[in-house]
Amino acid sequence: MEASTFEIDFEPIGKRVDVAPGTDLLDAARQAGIGLASVCGGEGTCGRCRVVIMSGYVTPPVDADRRFLTQLELTSGQRLACRCRIYGDVKVHIPKASLVTDQRLQLDGQARQLQIDQTIHAYEVEVPAPTLHDLRADLERVIDGLETAHGLRKLAAEPLVVTELSTRTRQTPNASEWHLSAYVRGHEIVGFAAPGQRPLGLAVDLGTTKIAAYLVDLETGEELAATGQMNPQIGYGEDVISRLVHADRDDVGKHELARVVREGLNNLIVALAFKAGVTQEQIAEACIVGNTAMTHLLLKLPVHQLTVSPFVAASSSALDVKARDLDLDIAPGAYVHVLPCVGGFVGADHVAMIIGSDLDRNPHTAIGVDIGTNTEIVLHKPNEKYLTAASCASGPAFEGAHIRDGMRAATGAIEAVLITPDEIKYETIGNAPAVGLCGSGIVDTVAEMYRHQIIDRRGRLRRDAPHVRKTDRGFELLLVPGERSGTGRDIVITQKDVNEIQLAKGAIETGLETLLEATHTPPEDIKEVIIAGAFGTYLNLDSALDIGLLPRLSNAQYTQVGNAAGVGAKMALLSYKERARAQHIARRTGYVELTVFPGFQRRFAMSMLFPNNKP
Amino acid sequence: MEASTFEIDFEPIGKRVDVAPGTDLLDAARQAGIGLASVCGGEGTCGRCRVVIMSGYVTPPVDADRRFLTQLELTSGQRLACRCRIYGDVKVHIPKASLVTDQRLQLDGQARQLQIDQTIHAYEVEVPAPTLHDLRADLERVIDGLETAHGLRKLAAEPLVVTELSTRTRQTPNASEWHLSAYVRGHEIVGFAAPGQRPLGLAVDLGTTKIAAYLVDLETGEELAATGQMNPQIGYGEDVISRLVHADRDDVGKHELARVVREGLNNLIVALAFKAGVTQEQIAEACIVGNTAMTHLLLKLPVHQLTVSPFVAASSSALDVKARDLDLDIAPGAYVHVLPCVGGFVGADHVAMIIGSDLDRNPHTAIGVDIGTNTEIVLHKPNEKYLTAASCASGPAFEGAHIRDGMRAATGAIEAVLITPDEIKYETIGNAPAVGLCGSGIVDTVAEMYRHQIIDRRGRLRRDAPHVRKTDRGFELLLVPGERSGTGRDIVITQKDVNEIQLAKGAIETGLETLLEATHTPPEDIKEVIIAGAFGTYLNLDSALDIGLLPRLSNAQYTQVGNAAGVGAKMALLSYKERARAQHIARRTGYVELTVFPGFQRRFAMSMLFPNNKP
Repeated sequence: MEASTFEIDFEPIGKRVDVAPGTDLLDAARQAGIGLASVCGGEGTCGRCRVVIMSGYVTPPVDADRRFLTQLELTSGQRLACRCRIYGDVKVHIPKASLVTDQRLQLDGQARQLQIDQTIHAYEVEVPAPTLHDLRADLERVIDGLETAHGLRKLAAEPLVVTELSTRTRQTPNASEWHLSAYVRGHEIVGFAAPGQRPLGLAVDLGTTKIAAYLVDLETGEELAATGQMNPQIGYGEDVISRLVHADRDDVGKHELARVVREGLNNLIVALAFKAGVTQEQIAEACIVGNTAMTHLLLKLPVHQLTVSPFVAASSSALDVKARDLDLDIAPGAYVHVLPCVGGFVGADHVAMIIGSDLDRNPHTAIGVDIGTNTEIVLHKPNEKYLTAASCASGPAFEGAHIRDGMRAATGAIEAVLITPDEIKYETIGNAPAVGLCGSGIVDTVAEMYRHQIIDRRGRLRRDAPHVRKTDRGFELLLVPGERSGTGRDIVITQKDVNEIQLAKGAIETGLETLLEATHTPPEDIKEVIIAGAFGTYLNLDSALDIGLLPRLSNAQYTQVGNAAGVGAKMALLSYKERARAQHIARRTGYVELTVFPGFQRRFAMSMLFPNNKP
Repeated sequence: MEASTFEIDFEPIGKRVDVAPGTDLLDAARQAGIGLASVCGGEGTCGRCRVVIMSGYVTPPVDADRRFLTQLELTSGQRLACRCRIYGDVKVHIPKASLVTDQRLQLDGQARQLQIDQTIHAYEVEVPAPTLHDLRADLERVIDGLETAHGLRKLAAEPLVVTELSTRTRQTPNASEWHLSAYVRGHEIVGFAAPGQRPLGLAVDLGTTKIAAYLVDLETGEELAATGQMNPQIGYGEDVISRLVHADRDDVGKHELARVVREGLNNLIVALAFKAGVTQEQIAEACIVGNTAMTHLLLKLPVHQLTVSPFVAASSSALDVKARDLDLDIAPGAYVHVLPCVGGFVGADHVAMIIGSDLDRNPHTAIGVDIGTNTEIVLHKPNEKYLTAASCASGPAFEGAHIRDGMRAATGAIEAVLITPDEIKYETIGNAPAVGLCGSGIVDTVAEMYRHQIIDRRGRLRRDAPHVRKTDRGFELLLVPGERSGTGRDIVITQKDVNEIQLAKGAIETGLETLLEATHTPPEDIKEVIIAGAFGTYLNLDSALDIGLLPRLSNAQYTQVGNAAGVGAKMALLSYKERARAQHIARRTGYVELTVFPGFQRRFAMSMLFPNNKP
């Protein structure tokens, strides 16, 4: 006799639901009202809906599972919920990272062939324990063993690593032999582990708003886990400047801002190790990228000079610092490599984006754009020694700030809009009732308004256009009436909102035009526009082109590469050659200071207009 | 009209005294009842009675001043009190280090020609301040300048050093040029200073009881200041084992013991910089030696394995650690070089003693002895690759512990004794009323007692000998009756005290004999006995030989070299070659574990007897 339904128990939430046999777990989660992450909508192509089968009968792993999960993860019961159908009562654990998070984090970048030249080597060693007739010190005993077994010479280790050794070897009090794995970096032992435990690496893209972190096998380059969270410094101000000012006030402030972001990184490390089923001590190397303010705050570098003209970095070179100096709980002697920056406004994340998107090796003239509160643009020409970067103060409109109903890219945010004379259709993140507009939704709405002549080239709302109404605030477009919104309030786009977008797009347009003029580059030379970063990933390209947020270049193809900075961080984590490449790029990237460029103000004023070439 | 007397005002004590014209300041201090240090008794040969002339007329500097004081110090008014006569009212500042300290610290070792191969180079640089047209980061700006001016390549610096740079250069807010001195170690900038400030080094001999510290000019090798203090860890136990046990209890204990000794070092650094009139940031390199327990506690290395058989070190190699990792307030990027140790019982201080006394280069077979709670003995043979060391548990009798009226070598301690049938003459430290006996006084007394047959070979007190009396405690020698002592109580040597000395001398004798036997060395082969350390310096050699504390070797000359470990620390501070030499010595010094040697117990029992060859 076949059961008509099976019970699914979702942990740690403790929610239960009865579903028909053959139901997939993503569907079951939806029925249970659980916000399980799924960017692809259950197509098995995004890998976000990871769960752990704790007990019960489900279908075996398919190709999609193998694409996103390691053998280790599959063995430990991890599966993609959307690819997994149930045939019995099932108990499922949902990792925190698989729940719809406060904000959508862009973790993935274009998959790439990664160059690996192992920064850390693991060597197993077996040595006799000390006796009255063999009084060698702990460290030298193991170093002798490593020399005998592997021919390693001139090894050394720091006191904290020696502590790890002496403690680990005395966990079995009367062992007559010590058997361990040493993680070696050049001539330095950075950690010890149990035999067979592979050395892992941590790559971090440290953004102003969010932090993305990746756990990678240093020998194979395989990504074992990825996770993200908000940058906890947000409590000290959403924008970079408030945080810099706070840190610059006194040593306490500087210490505080470093402390919270370091704690945030440690939380991510704990989460990654848990997800991958490894120990934190296996993490033997890290690589961090971020904008210049973020890396300065993390490293407790001086920031005063970043707050006053001419806004220079304290240090722009790559740095190798000890993980313990950043209070990171990984292998006791592990190093953190921080990629170099170009200057105060063009950070290590931008350098990582360049290597992550291979922009510097593009066979054609190409530009890379990372749109955010500051939008960085970099120009590459195949036959020139130097790249050229510019930074535009595009403002926080794309983060949803300064927009009446703006919000971050979280559940319920409108991310796509279609306007007809009769109605306005829209999609929200997580298909939840609309609560506001995120960056891509704002751009889409303004583009639709321009296409339907609801606004003119100067951005003025046409008072007689459909969906436009007048209130105390002036003219505005009613996007979602309160009775259908998730908040009970109307969701609108005001005249001021449109002007904010004009300011932002004007800043970017001016920046790009100035950059091209400064480098004597005709726009038609550009063959590729690489759009990186979270906002760029979800951006509707046609909308961006129609309102002039991105230039319509006759010979260019447009590529949205996702989190190329994260990819670049992973590349540098795995390879000294990529680190050298990043340092080389940072040194030969010129910076165009837009504001000192002649005619900047006039050009900026002009660039507020929407493009002439009406769609 | 000439004044008949002048007034001397001693600061910071605030004591005043009227003296005749032409009186020297040492004499004036004595008249004022101030314990101004003077080992040579006013001969101008010890350099201990340094003072600073704040105002008034005194005789100009003489050769003795120039021997002990730098030009800088002379210019700042420093002088030797004993060489300085007054010819007017004078205000004098007495540095703390020139006052008679709680304990006599042996700072000086044999003067030596020091090899200098500058670990730190100072380079002056002048670069333009940043502008909107020159946006280079602070560090790279200075690195570019150093490359242009001095041809330095591939320089780097840590975040703390960058902080020093950014802060220092912005002290003059609108300077259009930055002018500084960079301290460079290899390819690393370890600190910045004002132009012209020379890089200095710190050498430390970290003992269980006391710490000696030296400030040295890294370019010339000149000692600018020396000072010492008790090891503040004494609060956690006078002996090494109690401290190790405390540190091994938990992380708090370990942290606490490291903290107090690091604080102690910082106090010495402040004192040295003050004495020499320099800034702490000029101290760009340090070199520390100490016994294995002391270096382990300082470095927070694990100590559990030092408390249980077979008592091995966690690490025996030389270590370069950052001064900031030891919380030392010197140049922000400065390194501390810790010399290697031989094993759990033969520390880096002993390795420093070997290079400080050139024992390893002695053309003859020679031994080095450092007598203390543990007495280390090392044997050198000119044609052999290996040195051999032994460690004897001689106990704390020479520190004054376990002796009824024993005390450390402080003011009022009896340090020399002469016994006749009628009376007992003695000398005390500082010529103060006797309050007890320090190590050298105890040895002297026991030797005198043996010479005058007050004790026999087995150490038994002769009840009918002069000065011997019987009390409840048994027989004892009355050294100083209470009416003449500084405490009002009798000062005596008891039967038990004599037995303690026998135990101590027996341990050393057994150790040496076992060492010679283990290495097949006939005693007559030994051509030199080098006696190092504070106790060895003040030891009456004849007394030590008469009671067998040191062996009477037919072909040997005996040399008391003072604090050779301190000299060795200075040598290693100044030269990478000496560091390599120390590492080489540590690696090729074998260790004889006495207790596992056949016949040890029987030999030890025999060695308690005083020598047969009666004086």
